Amino acid sequence: MRIGQGFDAHRFASHDAGKPLWLACLRWDGDGIEGDSDGDVAAHALIDALLSAAGLGDIGMLFGVGSDSAGAGKHGDEMLRATVAYLRAHGMRPVSASVVVVANRPKIGKRRDEAQQALSHAIGCEVSLTATTTDGMGFTGSGEGIAAIASALVEPIG
Amino acid sequence: MRIGQGFDAHRFASHDAGKPLWLACLRWDGDGIEGDSDGDVAAHALIDALLSAAGLGDIGMLFGVGSDSAGAGKHGDEMLRATVAYLRAHGMRPVSASVVVVANRPKIGKRRDEAQQALSHAIGCEVSLTATTTDGMGFTGSGEGIAAIASALVEPIG
Amino acid sequence: MRIGQGFDAHRFASHDAGKPLWLACLRWDGDGIEGDSDGDVAAHALIDALLSAAGLGDIGMLFGVGSDSAGAGKHGDEMLRATVAYLRAHGMRPVSASVVVVANRPKIGKRRDEAQQALSHAIGCEVSLTATTTDGMGFTGSGEGIAAIASALVEPIG
Ligand SMILES: [Zn+2]
Ligand SMILES: [Zn+2]
Ligand SMILES: [Zn+2]
Repeated sequence: MRIGQGFDAHRFASHDAGKPLWLACLRWDGDGIEGDSDGDVAAHALIDALLSAAGLGDIGMLFGVGSDSAGAGKHGDEMLRATVAYLRAHGMRPVSASVVVVANRPKIGKRRDEAQQALSHAIGCEVSLTATTTDGMGFTGSGEGIAAIASALVEPIG
Repeated sequence: MRIGQGFDAHRFASHDAGKPLWLACLRWDGDGIEGDSDGDVAAHALIDALLSAAGLGDIGMLFGVGSDSAGAGKHGDEMLRATVAYLRAHGMRPVSASVVVVANRPKIGKRRDEAQQALSHAIGCEVSLTATTTDGMGFTGSGEGIAAIASALVEPIG
Repeated sequence: MRIGQGFDAHRFASHDAGKPLWLACLRWDGDGIEGDSDGDVAAHALIDALLSAAGLGDIGMLFGVGSDSAGAGKHGDEMLRATVAYLRAHGMRPVSASVVVVANRPKIGKRRDEAQQALSHAIGCEVSLTATTTDGMGFTGSGEGIAAIASALVEPIG
């Protein structure tokens, strides 16, 4: 059994940018995230936790960085599936994973089951999702951005 | 074996608020935390790690949010016991857990054993507690607030 | 199997301080970290994760704090070896570990393998290292400092 830790943070885009908000493989109401990816911090932190647990680098190594990278324009679901395929090609599979989102928005509660199912379906093991705020403190508390911390267990196949 | 990640952060109350400081199920010298709960970030992050590992939602779902919630007025010890009872009712038990407190105060060192015993006793497995600062940086470094990161392993009973 | 969580953060020193930058047991280009230690947040967070997993306190307890402590002037490699010797003297050994560095610099990518080998060699099991930024937000995004989150699994020997 091997353990992996993941972290990701992104800055909310201005309303004028007209970007949709993606988190945990779902689309949510409200403004999205700056940058080339869809900014899904839950998926990205989980990808890093899985790759780290398997000793297979990180999200930048697998998907590249920037507007012409393999990850640009891809959603979390597709990236998570590619991550697990990469693990399996190296003889590893996910056993369990957990993600905490730290942000003022979106409110996870009512769609937690849906989000957990999306994440779990994408990687083929149970993934739990929780969410918390920072009482108005720091870059998550000011509403400047959103962060996620993930951990995962993986094991050799067979 | 399943893994869970937890995070919590709270803002220190003003001295005028006269709130006591609770952390890791113990009362400490110094001013406490704003809000409806006792603000025990170590207990709250640990509860989220346990619930997440068991796939049973999060602290807001189990105890509610706000001054009339089931969690308001409860201390970490009671909430941790209720959390583990909830896990057991769903056929899961804690195996191991670890909490890092990030804050300028309180100083954990001299009471680490006492705090670890309180946490471990509450959930029925060994819980380790460490503490660190952020060299004056961010909302924990400025003394504005206190944060905790927790991880836990759980397994099916029997 | 027991789990441990670790966290560390340090402030970058001014260029005038002339301190070298140490991270993950390697020396990197660019200015180093303030304080008495070499400021290797990856090594320090990993040490706390290992000690916490083993129920053996934290880095301050094992190495002390301040310019006359056992840790002052020591590099991550030596401290990690001493940590694992301490675990082994208490009947525990590391199974797996993972560290996320959160910072604008150094860029880990090209030296990830070298860094992972240094960490893995020091503790005697596989350690994965990933790195991410915070899109210019918070104390890591401003370039004020560097942080690391680590998790580790340990088990009894024999
Ligand atoms: Zn991302
Ligand atoms: Zn709380
Ligand atoms: Zn340190």
